[in-house]
Amino acid sequence: MRNIDAMLNPRSIAIVGASSDGRKLNGRSLRFLLEKGYAGAIHPVNPKYDTVAGLPCHPDLEAIPGPVDLVIVAVPAREVATTLESAGRKGIPAAIVFSSGFGEMGEDGRRLEREVAETARRRGIRLCGPNTLGLINAFERVIATFSQYANGDTPAGPVGFVTQSGAFGTAIAALARRRGLGLGYFVNTGNEADVDVVEVMRAVVADPRIRVLAGYIEGLKDGPGFQRLAEEAMAAGKPVVLTKVGRTGAGARAAASHTGSLAGVDAVFDGAVRAGGMIRARNEEHMLDIVEAFTGLDALPAGRGLGLVTQSGGAGVLMADRAEELGLTVPVLAPETQAALAKVVPGFGATGNPVDVTAQFLADPDVLRESVVLVLEDPQVHMGIIWLQLMEAHVDVLVGLFEEIRARTSKPFLVCWVAATDEALTKCRERNIPVFRGGEPAVDAAAAVIGYAESRRRLAADRPQRIALAPPPVTLPERAGLVPTLEAARLLGDAGVPLTAARFARDPDEAVAAAQELGFPVAVKIESPDIAHKTEVGGVRLGLADGAAVRDAVTAVMKSARAHRPDARIEGVVVQAMAQGDVELVIGLKHDPVFGPVVMAGFGGVLVEVLKDVAVRPAPVTRVEALGMLDELRGKALLAGVRGRPPVDREAVARLICAASAFAAGAGPRLTEVDLNPVLAGPAGVVAVDWLMVLD
Amino acid sequence: MRNIDAMLNPRSIAIVGASSDGRKLNGRSLRFLLEKGYAGAIHPVNPKYDTVAGLPCHPDLEAIPGPVDLVIVAVPAREVATTLESAGRKGIPAAIVFSSGFGEMGEDGRRLEREVAETARRRGIRLCGPNTLGLINAFERVIATFSQYANGDTPAGPVGFVTQSGAFGTAIAALARRRGLGLGYFVNTGNEADVDVVEVMRAVVADPRIRVLAGYIEGLKDGPGFQRLAEEAMAAGKPVVLTKVGRTGAGARAAASHTGSLAGVDAVFDGAVRAGGMIRARNEEHMLDIVEAFTGLDALPAGRGLGLVTQSGGAGVLMADRAEELGLTVPVLAPETQAALAKVVPGFGATGNPVDVTAQFLADPDVLRESVVLVLEDPQVHMGIIWLQLMEAHVDVLVGLFEEIRARTSKPFLVCWVAATDEALTKCRERNIPVFRGGEPAVDAAAAVIGYAESRRRLAADRPQRIALAPPPVTLPERAGLVPTLEAARLLGDAGVPLTAARFARDPDEAVAAAQELGFPVAVKIESPDIAHKTEVGGVRLGLADGAAVRDAVTAVMKSARAHRPDARIEGVVVQAMAQGDVELVIGLKHDPVFGPVVMAGFGGVLVEVLKDVAVRPAPVTRVEALGMLDELRGKALLAGVRGRPPVDREAVARLICAASAFAAGAGPRLTEVDLNPVLAGPAGVVAVDWLMVLD
Repeated sequence: MRNIDAMLNPRSIAIVGASSDGRKLNGRSLRFLLEKGYAGAIHPVNPKYDTVAGLPCHPDLEAIPGPVDLVIVAVPAREVATTLESAGRKGIPAAIVFSSGFGEMGEDGRRLEREVAETARRRGIRLCGPNTLGLINAFERVIATFSQYANGDTPAGPVGFVTQSGAFGTAIAALARRRGLGLGYFVNTGNEADVDVVEVMRAVVADPRIRVLAGYIEGLKDGPGFQRLAEEAMAAGKPVVLTKVGRTGAGARAAASHTGSLAGVDAVFDGAVRAGGMIRARNEEHMLDIVEAFTGLDALPAGRGLGLVTQSGGAGVLMADRAEELGLTVPVLAPETQAALAKVVPGFGATGNPVDVTAQFLADPDVLRESVVLVLEDPQVHMGIIWLQLMEAHVDVLVGLFEEIRARTSKPFLVCWVAATDEALTKCRERNIPVFRGGEPAVDAAAAVIGYAESRRRLAADRPQRIALAPPPVTLPERAGLVPTLEAARLLGDAGVPLTAARFARDPDEAVAAAQELGFPVAVKIESPDIAHKTEVGGVRLGLADGAAVRDAVTAVMKSARAHRPDARIEGVVVQAMAQGDVELVIGLKHDPVFGPVVMAGFGGVLVEVLKDVAVRPAPVTRVEALGMLDELRGKALLAGVRGRPPVDREAVARLICAASAFAAGAGPRLTEVDLNPVLAGPAGVVAVDWLMVLD
Repeated sequence: MRNIDAMLNPRSIAIVGASSDGRKLNGRSLRFLLEKGYAGAIHPVNPKYDTVAGLPCHPDLEAIPGPVDLVIVAVPAREVATTLESAGRKGIPAAIVFSSGFGEMGEDGRRLEREVAETARRRGIRLCGPNTLGLINAFERVIATFSQYANGDTPAGPVGFVTQSGAFGTAIAALARRRGLGLGYFVNTGNEADVDVVEVMRAVVADPRIRVLAGYIEGLKDGPGFQRLAEEAMAAGKPVVLTKVGRTGAGARAAASHTGSLAGVDAVFDGAVRAGGMIRARNEEHMLDIVEAFTGLDALPAGRGLGLVTQSGGAGVLMADRAEELGLTVPVLAPETQAALAKVVPGFGATGNPVDVTAQFLADPDVLRESVVLVLEDPQVHMGIIWLQLMEAHVDVLVGLFEEIRARTSKPFLVCWVAATDEALTKCRERNIPVFRGGEPAVDAAAAVIGYAESRRRLAADRPQRIALAPPPVTLPERAGLVPTLEAARLLGDAGVPLTAARFARDPDEAVAAAQELGFPVAVKIESPDIAHKTEVGGVRLGLADGAAVRDAVTAVMKSARAHRPDARIEGVVVQAMAQGDVELVIGLKHDPVFGPVVMAGFGGVLVEVLKDVAVRPAPVTRVEALGMLDELRGKALLAGVRGRPPVDREAVARLICAASAFAAGAGPRLTEVDLNPVLAGPAGVVAVDWLMVLD
């Protein structure tokens, strides 16, 4: 497939179905291109007219003299394929299809869409849409869209925005403009019959004029491409901030009815975002808050310490609350810093952190300026937030003060200005000072910036290990379905996953012999290719202390399994050594339709079953990534040792996760599922005591 | 103490330290009173002037002819007490003290503040402040404040707002004004030397012109008053929406340095808010979103079903996500509703729920109106949200449409209008249509309204039970410290708390006899007035199957306890019957300095230890409240039965919580702590197997 440069940066554009009525869908893009001064050639195509909007109008694409880079198609759905054939004959490399009436319209539409995609592929045309609002490259004034957004100014700027939703994307673009965020690109990918959101994001982030990429996502098709996007953006030093809907079951159901395709397992998407050092925003406002912070900051914070300077003690408390919830610190300032602040801040203010300069600074602006500079100079502070409110009469003084602070410090800071006037917001943004409407949004944005800075450092340090990841191919058994316990043990053991010793036994005698070999106490578990969940059929007996107990247990589990599942083929039992551990983990492997092999880790019992507290990553993972997964779990304090127990060997847990993830990556798509549950972890190491493997 | 009517609604106001310079602190209130047309008498007091701002100026308060209801004091801190003496001689019942330099200024200031408070008390003056911005009663144009907020319009309206922070409160008031929310009252309570935030809120909510109460809180002193506020507001049908800072440890530390007093245990405040059917907002913006929703709704929703009508599928998904996170439902619409919608909505839209009417409705506004009405008529839908974006050119059509919808339905609905113009927002708000900037804020506000409606129903049904709560007084032992296990068992058992049978034994022989009486297996636990946490000294042995095991266990626990705590007085052991249960709970009682006796419930193990998943209520609680506590726990699914187990007997758990809470209420402040941990619960009932009681 050729790249999509001709689509994003065409030197000439043809518009099929062009109209001179600039209010109509098929007239708007032409009007925008003319009004906003697109420098390339514009070729209206419509057999009904000789000229359109003062330009020569051609009866068809082939009648256009000279080359055409991009064709905008705004004809009825059933005429689109014919138009693309004509575009192919003309040698046009890219098309944007505004027309609707495709996949979104049921089976007939889907058939039409497949035909259009096939035509484009055969003719070597890269296609955006159908059912798209189109795109804007504001740098080159390519306004190839009929979006309401283009009704207003579309100033170029360092933000690229790619959206799978037209209507919602238009609103987000308008909100970005209100904040003075220049969108260098605005692209709606529509039905994605050819070009998808990932490919567009990769192309946009490659533009050197783009510094931050924002994306609105409903569902991904290309997981590996998404991972490459993350790598490329990280290498280029450009944050990627994404809103993806379909976080919950209800959302996923709504998304399925909306997009006609499942949104994918949200936890897998989330894991891929974290793995790649991208940033996930909760909603459009949160996304733009984060984008605004990034566009206004020259430096990234070197740590998690927030310095809060306010004119209200309560606002400081509110921000400290939010910082703690997000895992940031609000360090008590060094004695020297506090001593210096005490000379500046009024007696009824506060010099710890938050620092409360009180409204007195209006009488003497030095108070605020010097306080912020002192706080930012404290070695434990890595990023600052200045909180203030109203101050209609003091906008110029304050904005000047922020600029002075910026000139005197190398550490990043944000401004939170509650109930600011439009004048105040505009003046801050004109000077590239990120400004927020409330303390919580400001702390949320700071947390995203700090998280990104940490990801950058982590991924840079871990880069050699990531590059070195080369999971050896795994030869899986031919047979589909449940893999016999001992065969699964051999496969996982060869891959370096520690498992308790296990023996297969056909009858009580063999089981006793196995137990003697393993050493008592042992566990006995039913073995059947038809029984995945052994506990549910009464097929497990634990802590058997001697031969008699083993003999009884074999009889009992076989009887119970037969009673529960008369149809199941019972092959015997597995005898296992008993293992010990302070903490139960669950490690899982799956083949995700979008991302391929993925690894999942969580704590066993209530945390994973009731609270769904799991961390997910595309496989394979490095040691650092595996440790990152453990840090992400809400129950992570369990690993530090609860009730006076010594800490769990985190490195051993990470090794197990790495080994399992490498196995998944080596095994490929036939590995449907591996469930290591429970994995027992303690100070002396880790071992899986039960495992389940299913092949496709 | 007399009530504060004279402070909130004075017929005449004196201003001590008045200035005719309307920009100065001591001139602003006078200017505001004159400009905004306060109808009562205004008496400037200042020995330096004969007239101020055209009014006769008096040398002191006693020189004023006729009665004075309220005196505003704006003199240096050290002169405030003298001024109050003079006000007392004049018979003035209320004072607002703007002056700062009190408790916020260290020990000298605190001494001065005590003196002021004592003077006011002795003279029968109700005092707001010191260090307050003052208050506004916009109905009567009492602008007794120097807050920046009064620089603009201060229209009267149905919202009362009371704030412990001056600067932050001013910003919140300004934000409320921008939304067109009229603040009938704005009160800043300052240092609260006399009148506190709770008393003011109770007075404001009693005004029939107030329909919604908003509050910004840093720390409460009067827990019982806060509970009465909740009852009074609920009885009057007025929602109370509160922002309290100091949610986290970091926040509480910041609050301590800011207010000079601990914010109190946040979980207790939170429990009191839930118990009273009040609403807690995360921050100022969330609070105003909820207030806006309440002021615009005529009816409360009868259930949790949200109907979402959008012009963007993605926005519908985003709102469905948020609804699920907040425990709301987005029900699939009835077949009849969907059939009716299919006749209205374009083919590429969606008729489930969310309903996507697409941008087509611009061509035919009937599409949106009829869709919303159909969705609201669906029996499973109790509240609607209409999502749209931009539409600059269609504001009047849309606003008209919302009014038509309102006229045709009795169910409440909100509008989410992303990137709306100021004109659109203003026109909606002029018509009392709540309008939100994004889908998540709209769903958050809907959740608050739905939660309030549920609280109303729950509290109304539970009212007879609440009134009937009359915990009998409990006679506690005289001795402070750890209560002996059997004495604690008697106290708790008499109160109706189910406990495992227990016997005291001084030596192995007595222990074996006790075990035989109780029946094997048993547990043996060390008994010492100096050892609260028996496990930590190796003082517990469980599951002892026979006399020999009991004998060994007694020797072992005594030896271990002596080794760990050579100083401890070992009195013997407690022998207990072993109990069984599927789920471990922890039930606690404490005496909170603000709220008095409180009861706490959580799941044992990781949920309470690692995730702090607990529900708290002021004691005593009714059965309904106890069940509500269980529903609030994140791990509540455990009670429904995990891994195929039958559900836990929730009623039995609730009975235990009620009994324990009644014990706490009857015992009074000497009961420092009771810890029932673990409490074992299963399908057949509930029993506490370990208990700890500490007295003051």
